[in-house]
Amino acid sequence: MQSGGGRASATLLSNDKIATEGGVADGKSEQKPTTPVSPLSLETINPKVIKAEYAVRGEIVIRAQTLQQELISKPGSLPFDEIIYCNIGNPQSLGQLPITFFREVIALCDHPDLLKKPETHALFSSDAISRASQIIDKIPGRTTGAYSHSQGIKVCRDDIAAGIAARDGYPSNSDDIYITDGASPGVHMMMQMLLSSEKDGILCPIPQYPLYSASIALHGGTLVPYYLNESSGWGLEMNELKKQLQAARDAGTSVRALVVINPGNPTGQVLSEENQQDVVRFCMKEGLVLLADEVYQHNVYAEGKKFNSFKKVARSMGLEEKDVIIVSYQSVSKGYYGECGRRGGYMEVTGFPEDVKGQLYKLASVNLCSNVSGQILMSLVMNPPKVGDKSYEQFARERDAILSSLARRAKMMSEAMNKLEGVSCNAAEGAMYVFPRLHLPERAVKAAKAVDMVADVFYTRRLLDATGIVMVPGSGFRQVPGTWHFRCTILPAEEKLPGVIKRLTTFHQKFMDEFRD
Amino acid sequence: MQSGGGRASATLLSNDKIATEGGVADGKSEQKPTTPVSPLSLETINPKVIKAEYAVRGEIVIRAQTLQQELISKPGSLPFDEIIYCNIGNPQSLGQLPITFFREVIALCDHPDLLKKPETHALFSSDAISRASQIIDKIPGRTTGAYSHSQGIKVCRDDIAAGIAARDGYPSNSDDIYITDGASPGVHMMMQMLLSSEKDGILCPIPQYPLYSASIALHGGTLVPYYLNESSGWGLEMNELKKQLQAARDAGTSVRALVVINPGNPTGQVLSEENQQDVVRFCMKEGLVLLADEVYQHNVYAEGKKFNSFKKVARSMGLEEKDVIIVSYQSVSKGYYGECGRRGGYMEVTGFPEDVKGQLYKLASVNLCSNVSGQILMSLVMNPPKVGDKSYEQFARERDAILSSLARRAKMMSEAMNKLEGVSCNAAEGAMYVFPRLHLPERAVKAAKAVDMVADVFYTRRLLDATGIVMVPGSGFRQVPGTWHFRCTILPAEEKLPGVIKRLTTFHQKFMDEFRD
Repeated sequence: MQSGGGRASATLLSNDKIATEGGVADGKSEQKPTTPVSPLSLETINPKVIKAEYAVRGEIVIRAQTLQQELISKPGSLPFDEIIYCNIGNPQSLGQLPITFFREVIALCDHPDLLKKPETHALFSSDAISRASQIIDKIPGRTTGAYSHSQGIKVCRDDIAAGIAARDGYPSNSDDIYITDGASPGVHMMMQMLLSSEKDGILCPIPQYPLYSASIALHGGTLVPYYLNESSGWGLEMNELKKQLQAARDAGTSVRALVVINPGNPTGQVLSEENQQDVVRFCMKEGLVLLADEVYQHNVYAEGKKFNSFKKVARSMGLEEKDVIIVSYQSVSKGYYGECGRRGGYMEVTGFPEDVKGQLYKLASVNLCSNVSGQILMSLVMNPPKVGDKSYEQFARERDAILSSLARRAKMMSEAMNKLEGVSCNAAEGAMYVFPRLHLPERAVKAAKAVDMVADVFYTRRLLDATGIVMVPGSGFRQVPGTWHFRCTILPAEEKLPGVIKRLTTFHQKFMDEFRD
Repeated sequence: MQSGGGRASATLLSNDKIATEGGVADGKSEQKPTTPVSPLSLETINPKVIKAEYAVRGEIVIRAQTLQQELISKPGSLPFDEIIYCNIGNPQSLGQLPITFFREVIALCDHPDLLKKPETHALFSSDAISRASQIIDKIPGRTTGAYSHSQGIKVCRDDIAAGIAARDGYPSNSDDIYITDGASPGVHMMMQMLLSSEKDGILCPIPQYPLYSASIALHGGTLVPYYLNESSGWGLEMNELKKQLQAARDAGTSVRALVVINPGNPTGQVLSEENQQDVVRFCMKEGLVLLADEVYQHNVYAEGKKFNSFKKVARSMGLEEKDVIIVSYQSVSKGYYGECGRRGGYMEVTGFPEDVKGQLYKLASVNLCSNVSGQILMSLVMNPPKVGDKSYEQFARERDAILSSLARRAKMMSEAMNKLEGVSCNAAEGAMYVFPRLHLPERAVKAAKAVDMVADVFYTRRLLDATGIVMVPGSGFRQVPGTWHFRCTILPAEEKLPGVIKRLTTFHQKFMDEFRD
């Protein structure tokens, strides 16, 4: 293939000739020959890119991919025969099945010719067929192959808004919905809007999901940390918020927004309604945009805990749109659906002045629109089959099986962590992770330093090399200096989890035996 | 719904109470009550966002959407009964049908349960079934619902690389492929890498596709214009490139890259191989990254013209990867496929130093991955059915019908434009647009100024209000100062095109009658 198609007529120049000839083709250049400048190097690219870090897919994961290749090319060469990816909330990669109804509707919308054919009824449920028909009928041009409205197809936004209203008991307006390719692009858009320079800051929980630190770094702003209190179950404490806001202001930072992740990532706590009310008041009083990461809204496992959206909390306090600015993020990637690869998400934007909304619309327009299949899936997630629908029983069975298994796994994981020597772990009340604290022996910290590694990176690297289990070191999420953690998803299949825990336990014991002070 | 679900237990506070109470929930705040700062206004958001413009979905289009609502709410109130969107390259919104084989494979991959069922053979072609099976078998975890590798699923990148190699006759490496949600995110990634401040510049053709000006503005760099020569069919002239580079350097701008759009958007020219060789030499000599927008590679209509990728041209000159840095963009949105809503695209990145590649990988990772359905579609576009495949005949028939109709429409459009008084129009050799020059009477320019409008905005706004035809004013793409243009897609259905041309012609004649000097 190399040479077969090369055009014989092309001018063939040696590199030397190119490097020394004075001008370009027309020969009229007056510049002297110069050594070509190297157009790209770490010194010349945007330093903000270099500063950004994203540990969830960082060095440990890159090493895991290398080991996975070794397992294929040299079977038996490693002390394990499988890499278990506990680094990322990616349920279907670990065997979770998609919700059948969702996939039926998406497939039908992808190939709407099927809707006309009688044979389709042998393969698809009748309500999937009618739902797909309803959606297609309402898409302008009846096609899923056209760019949509920049905020997303109207019928999808209508269904999302209806789902929010049903969830909260307060109205939602489809004009406030911006459908995005997963939640991340919406976070980037807000950071782009809010951050003009490093003088602009965003209050972020620590530990935090590294999308936030990465996005703030990429957009050149300042991350203003507020620490969650590990000893009160990763509590979000108002005194801490106020203290950090004041410190940032004293340092000349203009704090623009507060990020709250509820249920927490990587920390798994579910906020109480009272706590949320305090947060809303704080944002109002201090003139902060509330960026509410609510992508784990369907992942609540702890008895007596319940997800409340920040918008619902604000409305139930009697606050109206003009009183407080809330951006709520949701995604098809989490919940019981776990459709990470489909890249659907939305943000509900309330309280924006009209002219700023215009700017947000323009930003959305530059990216044309999010993928239509993900848009449809997002609308299905917010408007799933209802009692009485043909697919409801199967849908509810699939959903409940996943959620109850996740709840059991969350419990199993945190219990197992608490049994490890020198490890303490808060319960995962929600979300998909445990984030245990590692009380590492001094000798382990020194051994890490000796090989120029952060101590929790050293631990997770050792774990990977010994067991094939991939976790993310706590330093990737930031943590109270001098403390060490790791994040582990609760997502390995339930029947595999005891084996994973056993491998981890055995590794951990050996590690402690090696380094115990 | 408003009140039904509101929690009776929630604290209800009047706005007054909130505005005057001193602290947040714990009551320990020492700050005095302050009037809440307005967190968001045009004065406080990122000025780069305000600076960015995107005319393809700008004011004319927003007005068109308003008129469309009026057509529904007050039928008969406007002098037309339909809005015809000629503003954007969105073929399926104007009735173009998708390629059946592509949609079959995507639907099967979305709902792979179908692959096991015998009834599926009644609804899908056998090679679509086998292609979907091959893809699913090669996806880790056999699922399209998981986050993929940050650059895209390996099997999709392999198919894309094989397609590039077959197209060019030179090898392509799947490690160089970054699959993205359409081409736009890849452009943003490159701008993010290359632009640290306004001292960094990017050479862009004028007229240009406004994604480039918007992305450069958003990332805070400087657009360094080079003017295409309208009188030589929008020729890309080396003297102009050199002159503008020198001028930018003299002004202290560090020029990092050269954007070339081939076939041109909005200008429709197809570059000759000799011209491309000159461009490659120029980039080498001057140390510029060549950003090659090649999304219209399948849209070439002019006799004797042929698309050559810049990478192929460079390789046929004997240049290797280390000699020149080329980023080639492709998309599922254009060509004969026109799958804009699916958001698939890729960039092939060659010549990057390893450490900079690492930074690019990290940037891709922060966004997790592009949508899997779009990834699969992109791989199908680059590796479509071959002669002998069961679907080949239907595929080729559908493809050729679309391409030959586009060629006829391109010709019809430019001929019609050239018949208008005071309008001259280069042929659309490729892509999806005509970009005619409007020689506006002085009185029209003055009339526009009197209502504080740019003259070509005035013209397209009048056109919209009179006919329902939506075009983009040339100023949205930039143009030689003092000249006026508009961009019109060639995409209205072939049977509708004469009617569109007639409406335009009638409007234009009246417009000229009104303003003729």
